[in-house]
Amino acid sequence: MIEPLSEAERIDALDGLPDWDHDDGRDAITRRFVFADFSEAFGFMTRVALLAEKADHHPEWSNVWNRVDVTLTTHDAGGLSVRDVAMAQAIDAVVG
Amino acid sequence: MIEPLSEAERIDALDGLPDWDHDDGRDAITRRFVFADFSEAFGFMTRVALLAEKADHHPEWSNVWNRVDVTLTTHDAGGLSVRDVAMAQAIDAVVG
Repeated sequence: MIEPLSEAERIDALDGLPDWDHDDGRDAITRRFVFADFSEAFGFMTRVALLAEKADHHPEWSNVWNRVDVTLTTHDAGGLSVRDVAMAQAIDAVVG
Repeated sequence: MIEPLSEAERIDALDGLPDWDHDDGRDAITRRFVFADFSEAFGFMTRVALLAEKADHHPEWSNVWNRVDVTLTTHDAGGLSVRDVAMAQAIDAVVG
């Protein structure tokens, strides 16, 4: 079982992830990524898929051509956990 | 410019795609695929991505762990076209 972030930890985490939006209703973070075309978008998705499988922590995501919308939350924690923060940082590193 | 399917063509096409649902509001077809785990789901997505890029016709889709929801429609036609029918058949062939 993984613990959800405390209120103070959540505030700190969101400060450190300026490109991510917080979905209060679900206690999730979301980010939209826009690429030149589908090939770039799916290349990104493939890299994130490898990160996700390695961490055993998977995004909820959707793709329409050059656009990828990523949502991170930890179902076992009922909201954001350190695993989401780590995954968001790893995804940010993919896009530089 | 690609033509949308006529009413008769749409009925025929949907008869031939029994695993797909028709979204009347958008004139799109949708199918949910459920796999054993994320690895299988993303393997499927990778195969569909290759098909889509080859056909230059891309799905709208979302993935949550072992589940992939696929929507096909042709924006240039304002609804279903032969390109969607061909892509649905190709995707069905991937899952056997």
